[in-house]
Amino acid sequence: MALLTAQLLAAAAEQWGVFEASFKGPTTGNPFTEVRLTARFYQDDFAREVTGFYDGDGNYRVRFMPERPGTWRFVTDSSAKELDGKKGEFIATKPGANNHGPVRVANEFHFAYADGTPFRQIGTTCYAWTHQSVALQEQTLKTLAGAPFNKLRMCIFPKRYNWSTNEPPLYPFAGTPPRDWDTTRFNPAFFQHLERRILDLQRLGIEADVILFHPYDEGHWGFDRMTAQADDRYLRYVVARLAAFRNVWWSLANEWDFMKGKREEDFERYGQIVAAADPHRHLLSIHNGKVMPNHTRPWLTHASIQNGSAVEDASRAVMYRDAFRKPVVYDEVKYEGNLPKRWGNLSAEEMVQRFWQGTVAGTYVGHGETYLHPRNLIWWATGGELHGQSPARLAFLRKVLDAAPTEGIEPIDKWQNPTYGGKAGHYYLVYLGKAAPTSWEFKLPKPPQGKANAIEDGMKFRAEVLDTWNMTATSVPGDFTLKRTGEYFWADANGRSIPLPGKPWQALRIRRVEP
Amino acid sequence: MALLTAQLLAAAAEQWGVFEASFKGPTTGNPFTEVRLTARFYQDDFAREVTGFYDGDGNYRVRFMPERPGTWRFVTDSSAKELDGKKGEFIATKPGANNHGPVRVANEFHFAYADGTPFRQIGTTCYAWTHQSVALQEQTLKTLAGAPFNKLRMCIFPKRYNWSTNEPPLYPFAGTPPRDWDTTRFNPAFFQHLERRILDLQRLGIEADVILFHPYDEGHWGFDRMTAQADDRYLRYVVARLAAFRNVWWSLANEWDFMKGKREEDFERYGQIVAAADPHRHLLSIHNGKVMPNHTRPWLTHASIQNGSAVEDASRAVMYRDAFRKPVVYDEVKYEGNLPKRWGNLSAEEMVQRFWQGTVAGTYVGHGETYLHPRNLIWWATGGELHGQSPARLAFLRKVLDAAPTEGIEPIDKWQNPTYGGKAGHYYLVYLGKAAPTSWEFKLPKPPQGKANAIEDGMKFRAEVLDTWNMTATSVPGDFTLKRTGEYFWADANGRSIPLPGKPWQALRIRRVEP
Repeated sequence: MALLTAQLLAAAAEQWGVFEASFKGPTTGNPFTEVRLTARFYQDDFAREVTGFYDGDGNYRVRFMPERPGTWRFVTDSSAKELDGKKGEFIATKPGANNHGPVRVANEFHFAYADGTPFRQIGTTCYAWTHQSVALQEQTLKTLAGAPFNKLRMCIFPKRYNWSTNEPPLYPFAGTPPRDWDTTRFNPAFFQHLERRILDLQRLGIEADVILFHPYDEGHWGFDRMTAQADDRYLRYVVARLAAFRNVWWSLANEWDFMKGKREEDFERYGQIVAAADPHRHLLSIHNGKVMPNHTRPWLTHASIQNGSAVEDASRAVMYRDAFRKPVVYDEVKYEGNLPKRWGNLSAEEMVQRFWQGTVAGTYVGHGETYLHPRNLIWWATGGELHGQSPARLAFLRKVLDAAPTEGIEPIDKWQNPTYGGKAGHYYLVYLGKAAPTSWEFKLPKPPQGKANAIEDGMKFRAEVLDTWNMTATSVPGDFTLKRTGEYFWADANGRSIPLPGKPWQALRIRRVEP
Repeated sequence: MALLTAQLLAAAAEQWGVFEASFKGPTTGNPFTEVRLTARFYQDDFAREVTGFYDGDGNYRVRFMPERPGTWRFVTDSSAKELDGKKGEFIATKPGANNHGPVRVANEFHFAYADGTPFRQIGTTCYAWTHQSVALQEQTLKTLAGAPFNKLRMCIFPKRYNWSTNEPPLYPFAGTPPRDWDTTRFNPAFFQHLERRILDLQRLGIEADVILFHPYDEGHWGFDRMTAQADDRYLRYVVARLAAFRNVWWSLANEWDFMKGKREEDFERYGQIVAAADPHRHLLSIHNGKVMPNHTRPWLTHASIQNGSAVEDASRAVMYRDAFRKPVVYDEVKYEGNLPKRWGNLSAEEMVQRFWQGTVAGTYVGHGETYLHPRNLIWWATGGELHGQSPARLAFLRKVLDAAPTEGIEPIDKWQNPTYGGKAGHYYLVYLGKAAPTSWEFKLPKPPQGKANAIEDGMKFRAEVLDTWNMTATSVPGDFTLKRTGEYFWADANGRSIPLPGKPWQALRIRRVEP
């Protein structure tokens, strides 16, 4: 009979929580490769097959994220007699207050939790935070608790790169550091630790964008140049362990094209393996160096993009939406900091403006921080403390997004007036960037194709001036009443403009006075 | 025995010419749909299957473009006894001086003729020129003979749209205008005329980008809303007739997403039909209105893009290359003219600058002209005369391109310094656009990934100032000797700058003094 545990998993039987069944099984030979274990979880009209894994010390586990409430039954299937035909059941209860389920794609270009709550990505990056000292990891979590970020990019494998060359406390495989590994035997302690950290993020409301491969190894440990068989086994083990955690996203790679030993076909195979192995269909992406992968592949849920200039203005930011027709997340747009590299010395103002340019273009942006530090504790690699000025402003942006239309901010006139994002006829966010005008002519563009009737003469709007740097929202007195001025715009019937302070980083929030 | 004809096809048996075999066959029933005819053309180690077509008056034809020289044999296969098992042979001779074969994709983002000659696309657009009076068509050809264009977008079906509402002299199907058609019976005269015009373009060195479907009908003739069966039959007939013409490109649609009666799956089917039916693998693309198709589809050879702002600067122009990893042709970037529409009132300067921005970004651009005319003879729709000032400047650009590296102009530092195109270490074209500086600091960016050694200290370059509007190239005296100035640039060792005239529309051409 199944032994039901809730060891490290507090909300085990909530909807979208982790249900875990553990069993004692064979310890002889190599249990990681020689024992097959799957389980079928089912309700009356619905079933999911999940793969179990060996967790060391004779423990085999099967994890499952119930995506529907109510009673679930399961039965195992295994090559080991002790693990085969085990049955059990549990009740998936109502999710807790902060449990909205996994994030999914919504409205073609946006995201929402499984319960329908919009997810407006404000990402950050701490590639190797789980490979630092426990004290530093705890500090990272403390920093995150006070920061605006709801997604964090992090590597499974340790990272070795300029300013970040420490050995990690734990390694993913059995063997001897730095490079004598038995890739057929995983190190359960490494993955148990990783899982704890993913759950720590979950408690903070942060999605873990888990990076499965990366090039910052260069053969030091050799995790960037394992055999195809080892790569595939590793992916299946990771998915078996992590797929039941609702806040996991899969990132096949950081800078995939910088991994010299891999070809594009390898990443195609990885993507198909992960997509097929994951019973819970987590978000799945791949991040580029200089060469973009084909983000239209059906198993890629969104485009995870590095481009150091695409969000410098909304006219660029909007373009990859056209190409990929999926959510666009600019996961790497350079970092706020002072490194002697052009990818690591944005001013805070520039970092914040990139988020706004991406936002009005209907895309999402990621933050990173790279201020030099005497002990090389740089947020982007190690986590720790944030020193920059952008996070407070991103918290302001997050508040704005929380009050934006549920469907997500869409470009209104994508190629001609890309500074206007929103929902035609209801809500507009206009970002003025570096320009420092003293007045803004009130005008709204013709709605996009297919929404011709979204605005018409006589509609009334109210406006606020948002100072995105000083984090203020100031109401503009009075209403604006629409009057068409030609084929492409509506202005205010009384010709009113909006006075502005003559400073950069201003935005306008314009909302319909609903009848 | 096969009747070998060279009626309208002068260079019938040149390599990449059209070989045509004609046969008399059944005239009863519906020969268009009831008679199957194919032919297998073969050499010792190579064969191609082509489909024949009924050309009216009992004439059946099979056309073939020999892609290799030497003796070709063929044998027919038909459901009609008179057409079955016909055999013949011909010798494909050396191509004539102006015959470089069909245009293919080359170097991932560029084009070349089959004989290796680079093809640098300078496109234009006369959607309905073949549907005008004979005199007007002749005028169009005369205009083209003196214009710089080497590709022309044109619709098979007539066009009905603002400023262009005439009935055509010929219709593609049997029946009664405007909309009583028998789509199972084609009108051979219509297609014979179309073919003559495609050959006229071929003689002028112009590729015919043949648009197979378009929305500018709105049910008037109903060619935009035929049944799926009629669509597919039409495509197969067109491919059977036109595929042997080396200067044909297939454009599945203009503004595909504006065709209200079609779904995206229809265009997927069209693309697969054309790709499978075409034995000669002509370039194949699809052009968008507001929604881009998935240009990564394997049967699409390049991205044919409408975007009214993407080539306003090179930083935008370069982006779709990343996304599609195919040649990017900005076939519609607004038109030079004075229509009361924002897509039709570019100044000539703006039209020209879009070509240059696209060029340095490693892409190709299309022209169109929309000056109001008392009799609505607007180049973009009807052809006729050109009135604008951009074509002369595009001729200057074409001369520059003819002297550019064979491989095509590639972005040098695509996201950071998109104004630099060329071939790292050898050739640079730097476009300054609207800016009117009086001096340009000589500096060359670090070469792209994988070409780190393309430039080094001590290399010598010479520069010219190109006035892209006044069409002059002025040599800058003396050499520039490279010296690295930091991680991302090389400057002149003697700190020299290049004096500029303080006018807009300047470019720099910088060429290595080869050792």
